[in-house]
Amino acid sequence: MNRHLLSTADLLREDALLVLDTAEQMARLSDRSVKKLPTLRGRTVVNLFFEDSTRTRTSFELAAKRLSADVINFSAKGSSVSKGESLKDTALTLEAMGADAVVCRHPASGAPQRLAGWVRGSVLNAGDGTHEHPTQALLDAFTIRRRLGRLEGLAVTIVGDVLHSRVARSNVWLLRTLGAKVTLVAPPTLLPNAVADWPVDVSYNLDAVLPGSDVVMMLRVQRERMSAAFFPTEREYSRRYGLDADRAATLPPHALVMHPGPMVRGMEIASDVADSPRSTIVEQVANGVSVRMACLYLLLGGADEPEEREVIR
Amino acid sequence: MNRHLLSTADLLREDALLVLDTAEQMARLSDRSVKKLPTLRGRTVVNLFFEDSTRTRTSFELAAKRLSADVINFSAKGSSVSKGESLKDTALTLEAMGADAVVCRHPASGAPQRLAGWVRGSVLNAGDGTHEHPTQALLDAFTIRRRLGRLEGLAVTIVGDVLHSRVARSNVWLLRTLGAKVTLVAPPTLLPNAVADWPVDVSYNLDAVLPGSDVVMMLRVQRERMSAAFFPTEREYSRRYGLDADRAATLPPHALVMHPGPMVRGMEIASDVADSPRSTIVEQVANGVSVRMACLYLLLGGADEPEEREVIR
Amino acid sequence: MNRHLLSTADLLREDALLVLDTAEQMARLSDRSVKKLPTLRGRTVVNLFFEDSTRTRTSFELAAKRLSADVINFSAKGSSVSKGESLKDTALTLEAMGADAVVCRHPASGAPQRLAGWVRGSVLNAGDGTHEHPTQALLDAFTIRRRLGRLEGLAVTIVGDVLHSRVARSNVWLLRTLGAKVTLVAPPTLLPNAVADWPVDVSYNLDAVLPGSDVVMMLRVQRERMSAAFFPTEREYSRRYGLDADRAATLPPHALVMHPGPMVRGMEIASDVADSPRSTIVEQVANGVSVRMACLYLLLGGADEPEEREVIR
Repeated sequence: MNRHLLSTADLLREDALLVLDTAEQMARLSDRSVKKLPTLRGRTVVNLFFEDSTRTRTSFELAAKRLSADVINFSAKGSSVSKGESLKDTALTLEAMGADAVVCRHPASGAPQRLAGWVRGSVLNAGDGTHEHPTQALLDAFTIRRRLGRLEGLAVTIVGDVLHSRVARSNVWLLRTLGAKVTLVAPPTLLPNAVADWPVDVSYNLDAVLPGSDVVMMLRVQRERMSAAFFPTEREYSRRYGLDADRAATLPPHALVMHPGPMVRGMEIASDVADSPRSTIVEQVANGVSVRMACLYLLLGGADEPEEREVIR
Repeated sequence: MNRHLLSTADLLREDALLVLDTAEQMARLSDRSVKKLPTLRGRTVVNLFFEDSTRTRTSFELAAKRLSADVINFSAKGSSVSKGESLKDTALTLEAMGADAVVCRHPASGAPQRLAGWVRGSVLNAGDGTHEHPTQALLDAFTIRRRLGRLEGLAVTIVGDVLHSRVARSNVWLLRTLGAKVTLVAPPTLLPNAVADWPVDVSYNLDAVLPGSDVVMMLRVQRERMSAAFFPTEREYSRRYGLDADRAATLPPHALVMHPGPMVRGMEIASDVADSPRSTIVEQVANGVSVRMACLYLLLGGADEPEEREVIR
Repeated sequence: MNRHLLSTADLLREDALLVLDTAEQMARLSDRSVKKLPTLRGRTVVNLFFEDSTRTRTSFELAAKRLSADVINFSAKGSSVSKGESLKDTALTLEAMGADAVVCRHPASGAPQRLAGWVRGSVLNAGDGTHEHPTQALLDAFTIRRRLGRLEGLAVTIVGDVLHSRVARSNVWLLRTLGAKVTLVAPPTLLPNAVADWPVDVSYNLDAVLPGSDVVMMLRVQRERMSAAFFPTEREYSRRYGLDADRAATLPPHALVMHPGPMVRGMEIASDVADSPRSTIVEQVANGVSVRMACLYLLLGGADEPEEREVIR
């Protein structure tokens, strides 16, 4: 396992499986009400969030606390220093303060990678620009495997604003690595040009793809991007790319409906579909904690264990 | 004891007394410098605050940490999703993350009740709209009983903006349940219509009521509500409903002066009265931590204890 | 040792040395990966910050957590009550909640001193107006001693906006107490009138002073103060008082370059100087945690130890 978790594009198959297997152990302990492990006692995990994200931050915070780590929330908002320099100096500061891991969310693609070049601790990418969000893809893969028993050979359809979605990118790379077949469905204006080089099929017709899908992942629609440049109207978007009950009924009986949250009910997904038994939306949140525990455990747990002794009293 | 603490209106007398007795144990441990109990180790308490309230949030945070719980502050401010849906989806998210208790402050009356319908964990109402603030009433009752030895038969006078006060409402129900006799004193414009159905006496003359009061509770005046519609001027309000030294001198020698804080010194209460020996204002804050420890302990402590084992290392 | 740490002006030489020696123990434990001590288990440290300061707050938070204290971040921003009263009532509230220590940052000089008059717990000044920032001076002294082996007799040059700098003031008093000789270099408009009474030399010529300096401390330039009233332009400031590579080359070989951070690279200090081996900037951050651990330990650790027993289960 690498020292950092920066992307799924360069995650080896064996490392991805190690995360999923370790997350399975974490989930089983949690199912048995073992909620606190002493593994990372004395370690410090810093949440360095340059964008607000209560959900993701909270999920990492819970994961770290369940492993008995100390958690520092280091909000970088409102920093006045110019961005490039500030990130390096912030990194050196966190390093000096003894951060064992830095969980970084940043609006600029590649920021966690640069961070990783400056610190000795582990860097976990919690979402960088439109680049990657690897723990989201890992928890999605974990959720699919827990429900359907495998990933190899499955047909996974990802629907929506692929252009701006780091979740879509991380899922494309990871699912390919784990042997699933990915189809992207989006309006042409919400697909990146680079998609021609991705290991995916592309379709503009959701109805044609659903009956052959084992999994359909709905992406979050960011309303502020629903401008005329990308797509005519919300209603038109919803009509062509939203997952309503009629469409969901055309899925195979075993197929899953996934969403990374937070969702806009009635827009990209109908409420009854989101709350249906085939929906994994709430499970994804729960699995997120297990997967992040696994990542922190694998990245930090193996290193030299700090002693905890009553040296001074 | 119920699974939730949503209001004092439906709190049984025996449960209310159980909270007070347990809080007494907590306070005694704290007096003996036993500040940390292992009771809730491995449990997660989420502070879900849709309104700012540093005092109440801090009091719950301290209470939970003294019981060794992990505390997550989940600020809901700035959430863009429409309120009704967002509350449910937030609830399901917290549930999925494994929150054992959700402490909820919300501007809408009834929000914690709805929350309680969606999650398996315990919900503690930390103030909802103008509806209730049950832990405030419990800490007030605890404070009175600690000082005067009983609640049964006491004459408690609540003074001020009853119309907008959830503290007043929670106190009215709880004090009735515990056998005290409540008199409300307020300008007619700051009394709700429903007061006719409440188990209270009403007076517009503070001076007439004070000599027969064992306890006088001053409510916080929210200045932004001091518009002409409710009352002419601050000075006029203070003259008729403020508690100054002359008025306080008409109270019986043993009578207590209470305030939930933060107070506007010189407005609803004079500084020398707030700092006088009969004032319980600082004790109320201290007792707040003990009472909230008791509530968390009773709601969470009895359930299946999570094991803490060194399973993975 | 006093109960509070409010300033270095009144810190005895023996107490200052005790802090440095204790910090040395903390640093050595940390070097040996002993990151968590049980010393302050059950104690509550409140970070009461009336000004934003992620760095200093985080440093204190880490220091307290490494000593196993519970940490509450009590942000006082946006409080509507009038300042004078609010500070006292906030103090009484924190006291009542059982804060064992209050770490206070406040825009008004003297605020922590007033706070100390109202609470039984320890108050640590984390920066008050233009008055003092004692832990910064202690960590600076600790850094010098770790690098150069002593403080007695050293020539320390402090450069920049002395007028607005609490860091400069705390360093002036502490370095004098510890036997170093201080020279201030600043534009005349950025020196306080009182400097005539300080135990320092003053120079307006940085180039003349550098060759005889064992340590040069660059102060942070607050750009918003770089108005015509104080100094013509940023470029002119940088040309006369900035530390670039050419200037740094005139320092003796063993001399240190210090900066309290965050720095404006290229303004008061050139990037290559900040990153050079004689720079202690990153060490200062690391030492800050050790020094703050020492302060908390000395102020809180000696008092009556709270028992942690499984009294209620």
